[in-house]
Amino acid sequence: MSNRLDAQMAFLMEADKLKQIVRGTTLADGSRYENSGEHSWHIALFALVLGADAPTDVKVDRVIKMLLLHDIVEIDAGDAPIFGDHDATEMAAKEEAAATRLFGLLPPDQAQSFRALWDEFEAAQTPDARFAKSLDRFQPPNQNLASGGGSWIEYNTDYSQFEARVGNKIKRGAPWL
Amino acid sequence: MSNRLDAQMAFLMEADKLKQIVRGTTLADGSRYENSGEHSWHIALFALVLGADAPTDVKVDRVIKMLLLHDIVEIDAGDAPIFGDHDATEMAAKEEAAATRLFGLLPPDQAQSFRALWDEFEAAQTPDARFAKSLDRFQPPNQNLASGGGSWIEYNTDYSQFEARVGNKIKRGAPWL
Ligand SMILES: [Ca+2]
Repeated sequence: MSNRLDAQMAFLMEADKLKQIVRGTTLADGSRYENSGEHSWHIALFALVLGADAPTDVKVDRVIKMLLLHDIVEIDAGDAPIFGDHDATEMAAKEEAAATRLFGLLPPDQAQSFRALWDEFEAAQTPDARFAKSLDRFQPPNQNLASGGGSWIEYNTDYSQFEARVGNKIKRGAPWL
Repeated sequence: MSNRLDAQMAFLMEADKLKQIVRGTTLADGSRYENSGEHSWHIALFALVLGADAPTDVKVDRVIKMLLLHDIVEIDAGDAPIFGDHDATEMAAKEEAAATRLFGLLPPDQAQSFRALWDEFEAAQTPDARFAKSLDRFQPPNQNLASGGGSWIEYNTDYSQFEARVGNKIKRGAPWL
């Protein structure tokens, strides 16, 4: 194996740990909390399905790649729930450090391009990133609706709070939904 | 919501069940068996990382879409282990029926295009499908190596059997690995 393949495999094996990061949302049937690995698959599938009807300035292939990578930093930084108390500045610093370490496992060209894609997602300024972010916010509420609102109730929130925090982001990125 | 979005959401919510299909392979640390939802994310990530070095006739964006969809049929048909006893003809019939039902939840244009992508993956004839299939075979052995070979031992196989069944498919689809 080449050094390049060794580096790629090191990243891919480290990425396996995302399957052990537990989120604040449950499966649709409420049977257990979901992990960030299976969430990343589901949200990429959302992009594949709903992206077909996105505005023409959204490149669905790029959105899918962003979403495959978007939660990787949680391997070091953990999952930040949409609701609930956490220090946003501290969390952002942890995620930056995580991105540096994790994408840094890759060969230099991929370390750079994957990091750029993650930075773009986080900044939520481009049409692709706005679409990706809005799907990431759109999916959990749907699962919570299907499972009776489990994790909303636990975070002590309600629909108007959801609307205020999440709804506008969805509207901004995916106004056709 | 339009009928189109209702159909898309019905598919996406049904797809959630893939997170409950348990595979014959463990996480890299051997702590538990993995499910087909998180596996689908991981294998799509393999395509994103390793696809950068694939031959030019492989379109990585299509491979990723194939891999996001490739195991959906397991929601109805269950997981068919690479090793171990099962009736391949019966399994193929179950998977065909599953594909008809599950992709049939989508709006007609997407039902048709997703089914075509899954059929292409299953047939393993095009460069994209051969690459996707070879990654799907390449990933579990790597995880098993990391976790001490757990599921190979349970299926009572060994490396030479792996080489014979899996190695050639990997070589056929991904000779540069
Ligand atoms: Ca997410």
